[in-house]
Amino acid sequence: MKAIVDLCLVPIGVGTSLSKYVAACEKVLSETGLSYTLHANGTNIEGEWESVFGAIKKCHETVHDMGAPRIFTTIKCGTRTDKNQAMADKIRSVEDKL
Amino acid sequence: MKAIVDLCLVPIGVGTSLSKYVAACEKVLSETGLSYTLHANGTNIEGEWESVFGAIKKCHETVHDMGAPRIFTTIKCGTRTDKNQAMADKIRSVEDKL
Amino acid sequence: MKAIVDLCLVPIGVGTSLSKYVAACEKVLSETGLSYTLHANGTNIEGEWESVFGAIKKCHETVHDMGAPRIFTTIKCGTRTDKNQAMADKIRSVEDKL
Amino acid sequence: MKAIVDLCLVPIGVGTSLSKYVAACEKVLSETGLSYTLHANGTNIEGEWESVFGAIKKCHETVHDMGAPRIFTTIKCGTRTDKNQAMADKIRSVEDKL
Repeated sequence: MKAIVDLCLVPIGVGTSLSKYVAACEKVLSETGLSYTLHANGTNIEGEWESVFGAIKKCHETVHDMGAPRIFTTIKCGTRTDKNQAMADKIRSVEDKL
Repeated sequence: MKAIVDLCLVPIGVGTSLSKYVAACEKVLSETGLSYTLHANGTNIEGEWESVFGAIKKCHETVHDMGAPRIFTTIKCGTRTDKNQAMADKIRSVEDKL
Repeated sequence: MKAIVDLCLVPIGVGTSLSKYVAACEKVLSETGLSYTLHANGTNIEGEWESVFGAIKKCHETVHDMGAPRIFTTIKCGTRTDKNQAMADKIRSVEDKL
Repeated sequence: MKAIVDLCLVPIGVGTSLSKYVAACEKVLSETGLSYTLHANGTNIEGEWESVFGAIKKCHETVHDMGAPRIFTTIKCGTRTDKNQAMADKIRSVEDKL
């Protein structure tokens, strides 16, 4: 089962500057071979369910290891059985109708 | 790593009445041994990361098997290393300050 | 247009204990006359769109005034034109199918 | 109060192809003068709170007018008082640390 996911991880208890934690998550993702794209409110990830959620768990572990005592994460997750759709297809499908 | 999660699964392409799909997810959860509570905008779940996310994957598979061609799910997920907090503790902690 | 909303407001830069900020939001909601219910991962709110989102803005302003320099909020919002459904109806509709 | 928002609007009861509804929302946004960027799991929007949430309400009204009887929307919303940060700044701040 393939999933297209939006991950937004917020470390709590480490002040207001969160970018180094987000950068650490990007590095976790870069080591997975998954397709991913950083945007202003999260990171879009595409791949097999197990790989994607394994990577998200690794992000939590990594950010806790960096010293964040608490993490709040929001995930949006889409799966479909009717067609094989990539992240770029979703964007193109909207842009074609503009 | 323990997680407290809010799961909101929306089947797409099956009309406007979604409650039988949500009920099927509650049955999936009931078979896991995890603590969970249905609320008006989702289901709160508490347990070990692997068990919780394994159950969420099972919900997706079950709802696809029921005929939903597309699913959109929103997950909020909290983990913390500073203390062992249950769902009921979170609510009590707020209510104590009202 | 009536909305059923799940609000989860996370103050950032104020340490790991967030309950006093959530309690302040509950007080904001109590002064609006809106129906609302606290749960382990947020607060469900039901009412006219303008009232609900006006209250959410007031929550942001209140939490900033309490000293939180940054806030990250997740909102799930449902509207429908096919029927008039209350929060309790949504829960009952699922429970009837268990 | 400026807000940086991620909007993900899902029409329910109109089948599995949702792109024409998302395109209609993009058109709503284009008429507001707000900065916005479509991505694979939503649209990032930046502007004054009232303008941003006014636009989101207009999106709901537009999609209902197009015939969708039910809408489920997920919003992530950030506000901060410590600095004036644009969407591009958030991305750059992470990329600088990679």
